[in-house]
Amino acid sequence: MVELDFEKGNGLLPAIVQEFRTGKVLMLAYVNRASWERTLETGEAHYWSRSRQEIWHKGSTSGNVQKIKEIYVDCDNDTVLFKVEQVGGAACHTGYETCFHKQVGRDREISIVGERLFDPERVYGK
Amino acid sequence: MVELDFEKGNGLLPAIVQEFRTGKVLMLAYVNRASWERTLETGEAHYWSRSRQEIWHKGSTSGNVQKIKEIYVDCDNDTVLFKVEQVGGAACHTGYETCFHKQVGRDREISIVGERLFDPERVYGK
Repeated sequence: MVELDFEKGNGLLPAIVQEFRTGKVLMLAYVNRASWERTLETGEAHYWSRSRQEIWHKGSTSGNVQKIKEIYVDCDNDTVLFKVEQVGGAACHTGYETCFHKQVGRDREISIVGERLFDPERVYGK
Repeated sequence: MVELDFEKGNGLLPAIVQEFRTGKVLMLAYVNRASWERTLETGEAHYWSRSRQEIWHKGSTSGNVQKIKEIYVDCDNDTVLFKVEQVGGAACHTGYETCFHKQVGRDREISIVGERLFDPERVYGK
């Protein structure tokens, strides 16, 4: 039976989120025990919002929920990997497919890669 | 110019490490400002070891260094993604290709996926 080590991160573990078909890394979020349980129970990714200090059902506002396809735990039981189907195609609140859309060049300059799939103003309003 | 937000995590940021050819997520580690700089300067992944409290040049003992191919920063500048060539094929200190070799089933039981590529006893000795 899986036993995660929530102690190390003061109750929170990082969750890496990867699109199960493309293998693209979409985002990193955090889970506490309650959001981990909700994820297992519902089959949709739930996180702990550090800014709002509440359970965050990803996609509940935008409709872009993440359907859990596979879950992995790392060797130390202190990080999880969610392989998901990203409904709507975009995981990032900025409208990009992935939160990792800024590439660091050799000169340390940032280049934006990928395209915006939605307009955050329209989805989240004011 | 890239500016990471080291404040949020008390000087540490999570770094997701992905094999650049296969797209497999290999591990999650942490970088502080010094290890981030060393990574950019050397082209090989350097982390901050939370257990040893020192800069950790991944692979310096085992030879399994990680050659940086691409670096991405997320929308909030508080997580980085290293796409690497994993020398030796195994990123995990247990000898597996990836630290995420434990899959969580619907019954919450763990299954080990993948094969051991090296014997940690031989590599790290006593």
